[in-house]
This record gives sequence, C-alpha cells and structure tokens, in this order.
Amino acid sequence: MTTYDSSPPEITTEQLQFAIDNKTKPPGSLGRVEALALQIGLLQKTAAPQMQTCQLTIFAGDHGIVENGVSAFPQEVTQQMVLNFLHGGAAANVFARTHGVDIQVVDTGVSGEPLSHPDLLNRRIGSGTANSAIKPAMTREQFDTAIKHGRQLGSSGGFDAMCFGEMGIGNTSAATLIFHKILDLPLTELTGRGTGLNDEGLAQKLSVLQSAAARTPDALAADIAMAEYGGFEIAMMTGAMLGAVSTSTLVIVDGFVATAAAAAAIELQPSARNAMVFAHRSAESGHRIVLQKLNVKPLLELDMRLGEGTGALLAWPLVKSAAALLSEMASFEIAGVSGPA
Amino acid sequence: MTTYDSSPPEITTEQLQFAIDNKTKPPGSLGRVEALALQIGLLQKTAAPQMQTCQLTIFAGDHGIVENGVSAFPQEVTQQMVLNFLHGGAAANVFARTHGVDIQVVDTGVSGEPLSHPDLLNRRIGSGTANSAIKPAMTREQFDTAIKHGRQLGSSGGFDAMCFGEMGIGNTSAATLIFHKILDLPLTELTGRGTGLNDEGLAQKLSVLQSAAARTPDALAADIAMAEYGGFEIAMMTGAMLGAVSTSTLVIVDGFVATAAAAAAIELQPSARNAMVFAHRSAESGHRIVLQKLNVKPLLELDMRLGEGTGALLAWPLVKSAAALLSEMASFEIAGVSGPA
Repeated sequence: MTTYDSSPPEITTEQLQFAIDNKTKPPGSLGRVEALALQIGLLQKTAAPQMQTCQLTIFAGDHGIVENGVSAFPQEVTQQMVLNFLHGGAAANVFARTHGVDIQVVDTGVSGEPLSHPDLLNRRIGSGTANSAIKPAMTREQFDTAIKHGRQLGSSGGFDAMCFGEMGIGNTSAATLIFHKILDLPLTELTGRGTGLNDEGLAQKLSVLQSAAARTPDALAADIAMAEYGGFEIAMMTGAMLGAVSTSTLVIVDGFVATAAAAAAIELQPSARNAMVFAHRSAESGHRIVLQKLNVKPLLELDMRLGEGTGALLAWPLVKSAAALLSEMASFEIAGVSGPA
Repeated sequence: MTTYDSSPPEITTEQLQFAIDNKTKPPGSLGRVEALALQIGLLQKTAAPQMQTCQLTIFAGDHGIVENGVSAFPQEVTQQMVLNFLHGGAAANVFARTHGVDIQVVDTGVSGEPLSHPDLLNRRIGSGTANSAIKPAMTREQFDTAIKHGRQLGSSGGFDAMCFGEMGIGNTSAATLIFHKILDLPLTELTGRGTGLNDEGLAQKLSVLQSAAARTPDALAADIAMAEYGGFEIAMMTGAMLGAVSTSTLVIVDGFVATAAAAAAIELQPSARNAMVFAHRSAESGHRIVLQKLNVKPLLELDMRLGEGTGALLAWPLVKSAAALLSEMASFEIAGVSGPA
C-alpha cells in the first residue's frame, strides 16, 4: 500500500509570481486579478489552485437594541426573510443559483418562536440578544457557544471558498459598535442609514449608539466587544471565518456587517487575514473608513448595501477567474509567443 | 393555427422600476445592479429578462504604424496570440470557459501569410493596415467591408449578450487617434503605455501619434477617423456592435480599444448606447478621460489592461446577476415580508 504525504510541498511567493508573469499577457496586465491569483496560490500552496465549489452560509439573528428605534424595518422582517431564504426568493438565493453556489441558513437567535424547517440549521443562542443600549448583548457563555458553533460550521464544508452572509434587523448598529470599540473609529463617521433610515432616524440611531458605547471602556478586545454589543449572527460568523481559515478555505467577506465579523476574526487571529478576500465596498457610509483602517481594498464597488452575502456572491466569479488564470493559462514558452521586443 | 405577435408589448421604465423596488430588499440596496437590471429589462422589453447565453468574438488585426515604434511587443505577437486563442491558452479563453461564454476568433487582417485553422473566421481586409503615420490606414472600401462583415457577425448570433475583444499589436495607438479625432481629447492625456512601454517608448509613441494626427483636420466623423487611423479589427468591432444592437443583444464593452469601437458606434447611431454595458475602467491611462467624456461609469475597476475582451468577460457574471434579480427575486407581497416601519 502506497502512502502519500498529505501536506503539499510549500510554494514560495517568488515561484508563484514567476508563474503568473510567464502567462501569455504583458506582465501585470490583469491587475488585481493577478494579485488575487497569487493569494489563492499561496493559500492552497500550489500553482494550479482550484476554485470550483463555494458555499454561502447565512447567519440570522435578532437584536434587543431595536427596541430603541435604530432600524427602518420592523424586527419581524428577520424571521420573514429567513423564510424567504428557505423558499429561494431572496437576492442571496438568486445570485447563488446564478453562480452555482450552495446555500445554508442558520438560525443563531431569531426573535420569537423558533422556526422549524428541514433546511434551517438550528444553532439558537437565545431569542434575540439583550438590548445592548442598557446591558451586555450576551453572556460570555453565549458568546463562546456562538464561536464554537461557527467554527464547526466553517470547518466542515469541504468547499474551495465560503461566503458568509447575515440577516438581522438592527445589525448595522451592532457592527458599528464593534468597529468603534475595536478599531478606534468615531461613531459619528461609522453610523449610517442601514436599510434606509431618514435623517431623523439616523440622528436617533447615533444617539442610541452613543449611549450604548458609553456603557463600556473606549477600547475593547474583539471578544468582549462582540459579547457586549452582539449579535449572535456576527459572533457565529467570526467563528465560521476562523473555522474556514483553519482548513485553508478562502473566505469571501461581504459588506459592512460581515466586515465586523472579519475584523474581529483578524484581531483574534491575525493570520486569518491571508485567507480573506474583501468582496465589495458597501454603500453603508461607515464601510469606507473601516476598510481603510483595515488597509484592504475591496474588489467591487457597486453601491450595494443589502447584506445576506450578496456582495460576496458577486465577487465569487472573480475569485474563480483568478484561480483559473493561474491553473489554466498558457505560458509564453508553451504557447510560442514572443515577449517584449 | 394560432399566430403570435412576435414583438413583445412595450414595458415602461416606471413599470420596471416598480418591479425592482418591490423585490424583497430595501429600495435601492442593490445599487448599480438594480440600474443594470432596469437597462436589461428595457432592452428586452420585459420584467423577466433572460441572460443565459453569451459569446465573445475576438477581432485580430495588424497596424502599419508599428513600423514607427509604438509598441513594447513585436508585430508577430498578433499572429502568435491568434494561435494561442485557437489553442485555448489565452486569458480570454480561460475566463470564457470559467463563465460559460462561447468564443469565436476573427482574422480581420493579421500581417503576413493568412493562418488556416478550422476555428478561425477569415474576414481579412488586408495584411495589416497601411501606416497611418504617413497615409490613411485603409481605403473607404476597406472600411465599408469591415463594417459590413462586423454587422453580419454581430447580428447572427442568437445570444443574450455579446462581448467583443481585440488583439492587435499597436492598436492602442489606433484607438488613441480615434478618440482624439472624434471626442476632441488631447493626445497628451490619451496616450498611454499600452502593453508596457517605458518612459522613452511612451515619449516616442506620443511623438508618432502627434505627426499622424497632424495629417488630418482636428475633428473627424467616426467613419473617417476609423478609415484614417484603423484598424480593421476596430472598424469590424464597431460593425459588430451595431449588428448586435440591431437584434436587441446586450453589448458588453471591454477596455480602451473596444471603447474606441463603441464610441464610434455611438456616434454613428446614438441609440446604440442603450444596449451597451461598459465593463471596466482599464489601467491604460487615457481610458479615464474617455469614459468621462462618454459620461459612462464602468462596472469594474481592477487595474486590468489586457484587452482580448477579458474585462467584458469578468462583467458578464454581473450582467447575469442583474437579469436574475429582475426575473427571479420574490416581491414583498409574494414572500410575505413587511416593508419599512
């Protein structure tokens, strides 16, 4: 019986860059797609990376802070949208079908009676978080459980890439507070209109977030910030990102809320960043300064602000293209094409 | 026997916008993908548009002006890259395969002995254009033939969308001169490094283009500008765009050189613009001012400058997504989701 060494030989950045530069195109002429190919090659440790399979996991959860009036939509929309995901009618379903991406939907703590549906994964931590304007959104035990479930979900897939989406009325508020506490960015610049607040609603949201922030010290570690301000879906997504990274699965980071999960994952484990692709710059106004602070340039900028993983799904075809560049393009030598004169 | 009216009933912008706004998402939250959905719905005159099939046609041709030293690569690369396309090894092949796009390759006038290959369409107008630094690149008859062949190729496909790419050493020079003559933009701002000129090469290219431009009046009509400065592949692409538009096929416009063909098509037939999607902003430095002058905002900006239709191919998944948004997403009413509070 032959045995194989299961760990592929290391490949260096220089070797991969050489392979990319020798593809039949002027050096650098595929721009950021080349940089993405390099990242994927390093992650998979090969000059013939595969990006065939992708899964979107949507984490849904509710937020006690909506009692204070921080969203344009009522809380019941979280549960209604979970049903919409399960019936295949949401934007995330449509984009996933269009691009051959699997979907799973996870109830991390939607408010009210638990939904029962054969395709819904029940990982409920509670019936919505506590109202973080007045007390911690969750206990330490709830936070640890969210991370544990997330790690298990993120590491179990066997997919080449994973997109993570979220649904939770009020969750731009939670994400805003997390960014404020872990990245030292001002609430006045971070706070945006979410699903569509008017000027009055935006002022109200800012005021609520300012009191919520005043409950705790200016700077918090990522785990403390997530437990203080929620939500279950954000913490579980952080766990899932760390789980995916642990199996060298590429993580495609969606918009404003998913970036909060990613920023926390990077703080908890800085090397996680190497496995992450930032899909798009959201139209949610605070996303720009967050991405600047994280020093990342997203692939797309399409004025989207829906969440659900929709931005990540639209970046997936670019990820596939980058892997194919490295795996399938001919070299100058093989194709018999002359180099620069 | 039942007969059907083959022309679908008109649908108005208001009707389509209403359908888009009633999809289960906050209004406007899919940003530019919604605008794209509207454009596709108007083009296909339906709130259930289809974007399933796409073809890339690559037009290859050579340019006499390379005698004067305007490119970093030697002329034989045009023919070598045609063979690379036919063997499936170029970036365009790889991206097309990745995204389920058909390819056809057209010889519009590659220099030297004609290539013979079962998959290569022979529409040769000559063996490279004349050197436009000293005389017209082509005759009026050659120009008319290029447009005619292009129209036939663009209108014969039966695809939902068409991408048009090009290969031709020296063709950023031709495109630059066309932009200069038809859009009244300065050569100093239009002229870029193409496949990778160094500073000295760039200065040489600018000097050659300045003398070439001085041969003719400051402003030229699009047909005259294309005949004066070429190339065969650009003129045939203009014809193909007009052919596609005539059958309500969406045209996905690639980078700097393809935009010259598109700008000419729009000048010849302004309504052609309604069927065009501009895929990406090229890293070729003049593309920015050209797109500004045309008042279009491309979908992607990935620092690419390869041509071949590669940028258009990467925009195709976004086009598919936009059509699916309109055709497949549930409305608030059907999904039972509450609107804003």
